[in-house]
Amino acid sequence: MATEHIVKSFDQELDLLKRTIAQMGGLAERQLESAIHSVMRRDSGLASRVVQADSQLDEYENEIDNDAIRMLALRQPLAQDLREIVSALKIASDLERIGDYAANVAKRAIALAQVPVVRPVHTIPRMGRLVQEIIKEVLDAYADRDLDRALAAWSQDEEVDDLYTSLFRETLTYMMEDPRNITPCTHLLFIAKNIERMGDHATNVAETIHFLIEGKPLIEPRPKGDSSSFAVVTPDTVDDQED
Amino acid sequence: MATEHIVKSFDQELDLLKRTIAQMGGLAERQLESAIHSVMRRDSGLASRVVQADSQLDEYENEIDNDAIRMLALRQPLAQDLREIVSALKIASDLERIGDYAANVAKRAIALAQVPVVRPVHTIPRMGRLVQEIIKEVLDAYADRDLDRALAAWSQDEEVDDLYTSLFRETLTYMMEDPRNITPCTHLLFIAKNIERMGDHATNVAETIHFLIEGKPLIEPRPKGDSSSFAVVTPDTVDDQED
Repeated sequence: MATEHIVKSFDQELDLLKRTIAQMGGLAERQLESAIHSVMRRDSGLASRVVQADSQLDEYENEIDNDAIRMLALRQPLAQDLREIVSALKIASDLERIGDYAANVAKRAIALAQVPVVRPVHTIPRMGRLVQEIIKEVLDAYADRDLDRALAAWSQDEEVDDLYTSLFRETLTYMMEDPRNITPCTHLLFIAKNIERMGDHATNVAETIHFLIEGKPLIEPRPKGDSSSFAVVTPDTVDDQED
Repeated sequence: MATEHIVKSFDQELDLLKRTIAQMGGLAERQLESAIHSVMRRDSGLASRVVQADSQLDEYENEIDNDAIRMLALRQPLAQDLREIVSALKIASDLERIGDYAANVAKRAIALAQVPVVRPVHTIPRMGRLVQEIIKEVLDAYADRDLDRALAAWSQDEEVDDLYTSLFRETLTYMMEDPRNITPCTHLLFIAKNIERMGDHATNVAETIHFLIEGKPLIEPRPKGDSSSFAVVTPDTVDDQED
């Protein structure tokens, strides 16, 4: 019997690309979840594992980059297929950034575990769960080509920004009350900012999905609800906050 | 006389793509510079203009995305030309992020101008100038296809991280000394973090240039010198800092 080389069809290659994105997305989501757990449980072992696992996301990104470029060269796709490949490139990049931020949260968890607990830490898992939800939504929207789901996820980013703004204000007051709170509170602020940025990148994915399905960008200005940049709180007017 | 349509050659289209990247890069660089100035001069008017100008960078990114996809579809490039187009996509994305961070710095400048000056602010322009230098270097390396220059820029990122780490520690001590320093210091920390992230994205551009010239990724782990995640400073042991 003659041996046959099994050559993948273009459709099979595209399917593989989509599945790799899904796997990469699942890992990014788990990294976020584990990073938050490492903060709340003060678990430096778990945090270290999150930091180490981040390289797998870099490898996924390299793999998807290589596959995408190979397919562009060999298949010379048009229209929808072309958008598929370009979207995969963009989404892989956003997922890799989400992973980076999760690893940063984990690093801060290690530092946080060495200092006393402060109350605003309880907003962290709320932000984390919300962003995890958004990531799940956009990954499902990508798999099902569901535009409505992508847009719903896109609008949830404002809620993440609101949570961040209120955690920011709360944390400032704890820092002013007692100097021993300053170090843990500073780490908390960065953890929260990292989570907020993860939400931004998940929103990018939603925008890419819109482009993938509609063939044009989602032009509306993204809801930018983080007003912490404008927060001014003075020690003697803690309850009289300006915006 | 018969009218003739002037059709661009592929080379002309590639040249236009490279020039658009250069223009976008120049704008991103000016945004960083203006944002730093708005911090140091406490100039809220300048800061607002930086925030508004950020949308031009989003437009550049859309334009480059569209041109890249059109060229992929119509020209079906191979090898080096294909890498050119994919690289332009990646670099445009990094430049857009750099612009975002510059706008964030500008927003914080507005808040900072409303509170008293604190000393660590003087590290900000040093960080800013260094990152501006890195951005210039990578844009020149891209224009000239100069691998050595790209790699030199890539290694400078460690210096940015070192500056950030020392500003972080310095700022913590000011926050502990006097509660009135906390709000301005917190804004400073975020400004510095934004600048550090701009450095990260400039480093991404260096990595993309390596890929563009060599045809494969720069696999070495990026120098990660920001050890602020691990900083623990207690009020009574300010001079006895752990890492």
